[in-house]
Amino acid sequence: MARRPTLEFWYEFASTYSYLAAMRIEALAEAAGVEIRWRPFLLGPIFAAQGWNSSPFNIYPTKGRNMWRDLEREAARLGLGPVTRPASFPQNSLSATRTATYGADQDWLIPFSKSVFEASFARGQSIAEPNAVSQILDRLGLDGVQILKAASNEANKTRLRVNGEEARSRGIFGAPTFLTDDGELFWGNDRLEQALAWAGGERPGSLR
Amino acid sequence: MARRPTLEFWYEFASTYSYLAAMRIEALAEAAGVEIRWRPFLLGPIFAAQGWNSSPFNIYPTKGRNMWRDLEREAARLGLGPVTRPASFPQNSLSATRTATYGADQDWLIPFSKSVFEASFARGQSIAEPNAVSQILDRLGLDGVQILKAASNEANKTRLRVNGEEARSRGIFGAPTFLTDDGELFWGNDRLEQALAWAGGERPGSLR
Repeated sequence: MARRPTLEFWYEFASTYSYLAAMRIEALAEAAGVEIRWRPFLLGPIFAAQGWNSSPFNIYPTKGRNMWRDLEREAARLGLGPVTRPASFPQNSLSATRTATYGADQDWLIPFSKSVFEASFARGQSIAEPNAVSQILDRLGLDGVQILKAASNEANKTRLRVNGEEARSRGIFGAPTFLTDDGELFWGNDRLEQALAWAGGERPGSLR
Repeated sequence: MARRPTLEFWYEFASTYSYLAAMRIEALAEAAGVEIRWRPFLLGPIFAAQGWNSSPFNIYPTKGRNMWRDLEREAARLGLGPVTRPASFPQNSLSATRTATYGADQDWLIPFSKSVFEASFARGQSIAEPNAVSQILDRLGLDGVQILKAASNEANKTRLRVNGEEARSRGIFGAPTFLTDDGELFWGNDRLEQALAWAGGERPGSLR
């Protein structure tokens, strides 16, 4: 039996367009016959290496204003509910990302990740405090306190750091990013369809 | 008879994604029943105001590498021929933009603009020298030398500068940008379809 092609979905919990991608990738991947590997990571260190100490949407205000309006429009077009901006942006996503890194091979990774995104961008809640992350886990029927404790161990912190180095070494500079088995990189929620088509073996017309 | 809705298409000749938009906007606008107003402008002063002295695709090399690959893929997907990178990027687009500004109300504005984009990104030719611009006009059956001379007059230079101030005051921070009659701004070739739908009166589902 042929192995299904896979596509890596690199996402950052503080990223608005990662939210859009996370909410729609499962249905699209199913239709395309592509397996998704969810890869949580921290964009902060990558932005810092580019000389940014915040989101470019904060550093360049006109770009930021457009992003929030575009997010509203795109969320509506994609059939998601209204967007609610979190009080602080970008949110500190360390605790949530550590948790997702710890949950990489767990059944709860995807529902947890989607719950974090919805808390942040559909309900505008803080996801920055460990307690907020713990409550999200609890609501999924998990033991939040125990998982956060386990996610704080050194092995998991190292894993998170190594993932970040992998992201940078594979050319990732923003989120979401989609990486195919053959190393093709697609950046942004706007390229999800193209990334899935590529992963499934399609190549655009005249491409060399 | 109802007036057709209009959409302003703000484009910069040095911009790769403006190229993609320019090559496909006519057919899409026709299908959508929307009138396009072609608005050439210079992005340089706007980038300079953001502290950039070059294209962000040069300032951030990983972003730049992705952009060129993405441009190849998207050009192929959209049915355009292969992309050929000009030797220098971004090209100095002053002469071409002055010419297009002078041609704002002329029949040749659109064929001229598309010819400049094709020279730059399909054939990888220089469009920076007045002579290159003049030859493009000649090949359209126009008098290149005469038009370039007329485009260099003070009134036209002022018009170009005023257009740039209009771009900035209306929130433009990149190219291509689409602006609707009711002031909705859409940035990027990826939003052309959404901009046309908005101009035609459609509103995404749950949008406030």
